[in-house]
Amino acid sequence: MSTHPLEEILHPRAIAVVGASAASGRGSGFVSALLDQGYKGDIYPVNPKYPEIMGMKCYPRVKDIPGEVDYVISSIPASQVLSMIEDCAQKGVKAVHLFTARFSETGRKDAAELEQEVLRQAKKGGIRLIGPNCMGVYYPAEGISYSGGMSKESGPVGLLSQSGMAVGQIVGMATQKGIRFSKAISYGNALDFNECDYLEYFTQDPETKMILMYIEGVRDGRRFFRSLRKAAAAKPVIIVKGGRGNSGTRATASHTASLAGSMEVWETVVNQTGAVSAVNLEELVDIAGAFYFLPPVTGRRVGVAGGSGGGSVLAADLCEEAGLDVIPLPDDLREELRNKDVPVWDWISNPIDSSISWGMFDTWEVFAMMAKHPSFDLLIVFMNAPYGRGPHRGRTRISVDKHLEQYRLSEINHKPLLAVMGDSRGRDEDDARLVQKVITEMREKLIDAKVPIYSSVERAAVAASKMIDYYQSGK
Amino acid sequence: MSTHPLEEILHPRAIAVVGASAASGRGSGFVSALLDQGYKGDIYPVNPKYPEIMGMKCYPRVKDIPGEVDYVISSIPASQVLSMIEDCAQKGVKAVHLFTARFSETGRKDAAELEQEVLRQAKKGGIRLIGPNCMGVYYPAEGISYSGGMSKESGPVGLLSQSGMAVGQIVGMATQKGIRFSKAISYGNALDFNECDYLEYFTQDPETKMILMYIEGVRDGRRFFRSLRKAAAAKPVIIVKGGRGNSGTRATASHTASLAGSMEVWETVVNQTGAVSAVNLEELVDIAGAFYFLPPVTGRRVGVAGGSGGGSVLAADLCEEAGLDVIPLPDDLREELRNKDVPVWDWISNPIDSSISWGMFDTWEVFAMMAKHPSFDLLIVFMNAPYGRGPHRGRTRISVDKHLEQYRLSEINHKPLLAVMGDSRGRDEDDARLVQKVITEMREKLIDAKVPIYSSVERAAVAASKMIDYYQSGK
Repeated sequence: MSTHPLEEILHPRAIAVVGASAASGRGSGFVSALLDQGYKGDIYPVNPKYPEIMGMKCYPRVKDIPGEVDYVISSIPASQVLSMIEDCAQKGVKAVHLFTARFSETGRKDAAELEQEVLRQAKKGGIRLIGPNCMGVYYPAEGISYSGGMSKESGPVGLLSQSGMAVGQIVGMATQKGIRFSKAISYGNALDFNECDYLEYFTQDPETKMILMYIEGVRDGRRFFRSLRKAAAAKPVIIVKGGRGNSGTRATASHTASLAGSMEVWETVVNQTGAVSAVNLEELVDIAGAFYFLPPVTGRRVGVAGGSGGGSVLAADLCEEAGLDVIPLPDDLREELRNKDVPVWDWISNPIDSSISWGMFDTWEVFAMMAKHPSFDLLIVFMNAPYGRGPHRGRTRISVDKHLEQYRLSEINHKPLLAVMGDSRGRDEDDARLVQKVITEMREKLIDAKVPIYSSVERAAVAASKMIDYYQSGK
Repeated sequence: MSTHPLEEILHPRAIAVVGASAASGRGSGFVSALLDQGYKGDIYPVNPKYPEIMGMKCYPRVKDIPGEVDYVISSIPASQVLSMIEDCAQKGVKAVHLFTARFSETGRKDAAELEQEVLRQAKKGGIRLIGPNCMGVYYPAEGISYSGGMSKESGPVGLLSQSGMAVGQIVGMATQKGIRFSKAISYGNALDFNECDYLEYFTQDPETKMILMYIEGVRDGRRFFRSLRKAAAAKPVIIVKGGRGNSGTRATASHTASLAGSMEVWETVVNQTGAVSAVNLEELVDIAGAFYFLPPVTGRRVGVAGGSGGGSVLAADLCEEAGLDVIPLPDDLREELRNKDVPVWDWISNPIDSSISWGMFDTWEVFAMMAKHPSFDLLIVFMNAPYGRGPHRGRTRISVDKHLEQYRLSEINHKPLLAVMGDSRGRDEDDARLVQKVITEMREKLIDAKVPIYSSVERAAVAASKMIDYYQSGK
């Protein structure tokens, strides 16, 4: 099997940033991003205006760089790109990431023509292109990033996206939930490498076990269909399609100059390939969390606990509407409750309404029994934030470990469990500080316990249901 | 027009709390809630076990109270209720709120029989009942509450709910968004006053301009249909139906012992009455916010701003999927942009993609032009939290007023505007403290400017669309 051309490109020995700027701002962003991410190769800032940038020698042009350069990041204006490509060809550069925008996505004929000329010259010089009009590559294991502050840890999730902002949002949300990436690539106008190239790369990439995609339109429908089917057969693929409606299609055109195609065709294609469809970036990350942390689940029988009263009733509705099966409490489990002298044993149901215990018994003991029962395929649990209320409605500083113990996570063993934690900001500044501390600690411990965290029961139920769809289809 | 019987009941001269406890917990909760809420009448704790509670004299039985008592809150066990009702009848009590549970909702024959006997004895003694199995009344203007820490401010929103937890959640979420209540009543098993009585009360109540409902099932479908139609003709009514699915119906049965009925019948009824339907409590509060802060909107043409790239594309999709019309930028507005020499004037579209300005022009100037243009019926705007990033990714402490100025709120005049503010918790404890401070301030200022706040563009779009449905139907 021949190596995918992106494999070499993504392991550059040295990177030049053309259009680097000494002023703070986007121009210097790529240099500091590479430093922050810990890129091990040489970094060469390029800009005729500055002798040095961030303490590093700055070169007037690419061809002035003394060492070899494999990869160039371009943040110069579109009008200067052709001459830079010429330099890069002379220098033996293998790939250029064109952060540079204002090409075909403007809808202007001259800009589209310039874009095509860039492609021709790059091909002539043996240079492959990422972009234009995109944020490029985040590859933590290689120390490559387009922004500071990204996680240094690698993980099994590959992400490709037409939109750079979508990459930022997806990686940001996913990182908070403990999800880590092999690499994330935004490809903008996809002038050279396109969505199929990136998808095929991730399909064969051993570092990637799950693929996330944000896509607005495709250039070659047949090839995309084949690539997607092959990808989804190899690993879970979760897709958000942007530009589903009329206005979205319009916005797509100005965003990355691609044809969006009709939503009906799109849905058909996605369903046939076995890829999982999400309606927005939050749902994409929600579903990714289920695949990431949970073992394959093929049954839909869910046990729900921790809500109360009307909350439990609505939780049951929302689980069913998402396609899960909120089964009644099994007879033998009810009998066990009776034998254990659990008060209101005949009143307890699924969802377990935590408000009915009124301190008479421990709801979570019942939950642990549910977790051990073979009738349940998965569990969704509302978790309170780890603080109580003391006098004057102040927070009691209780231990997060002690708080988590009540949920009997250790007794749940291998039953797939999704946690719902509502948002808490705190009442005032001091309270916010404490809430932040304990919630961060609780989230970390849940992530360590491989429990995906959701902000609402709907979102947990939809994520679980879409994961089950995938595994039920025999993947 | 005769006065609704609830009117007198909700203005009691004195309240007794039977089953009040000196120990912290639910028994004492009602006493401290009334104190905290500032109830002006006499409060009498009743419990033979204690000589005093919270520094107040505690009476063994209701009939031992020296003064008159109009209203009694019962938190004693179900088995003691009949004898308390007898006392109340002797004492001339007008109404009893039975927080006490374990009646018909348990599904037990003896408990259901006891419940009916309680009703018979109350009727015989001339006593009306709220509940049983409910949290009762929150009426800020009267200083009545079932919990401490509720807002002391009154507002035009009436809430009735089978579930007390739903009242807590709705009031909690709504209060954070600046929504204030006339009164909120949870009624549990609805033994005496039922959902129709409360709905009819709110319909004629001059303090209530909008009605929110959480309902699991109704006892008398015909009467409910008539009451709901009359209510929705008088003021906006927004309903969440709990117990929509099989399991929800089951959970409903154990929760408040009512028959849920089929969802098809329910949807038909709600649509025919002109009430607005919400799928969960969050959406209920979202829609309430639109009615609360915005003038009547009958058009669906929305301008969207503040998102970027893929975010704008998805925002457009989600607005359209919610039933709004994301129209193209009108020709005359585009011409105006050209005449003002706004760069990329032919590239700017609706949604305004804030990432395309790259500092070349002020996106919000374009937004203000959109706000003044008659082609737009409403606006949805993504707002950043009011902080920038300084060196080392620390927050720059910028003024919230200065931050809000950029959105040109004063220039928007009377164009209905919905704000989308994502969640921000902060990176660490100190940061959380600052984020809490500035976000609280920003939310307060938006509330003062009558701007409803949403956590996502979908939620803003759905709320707006459902409000427009209501006004388009000619209410």
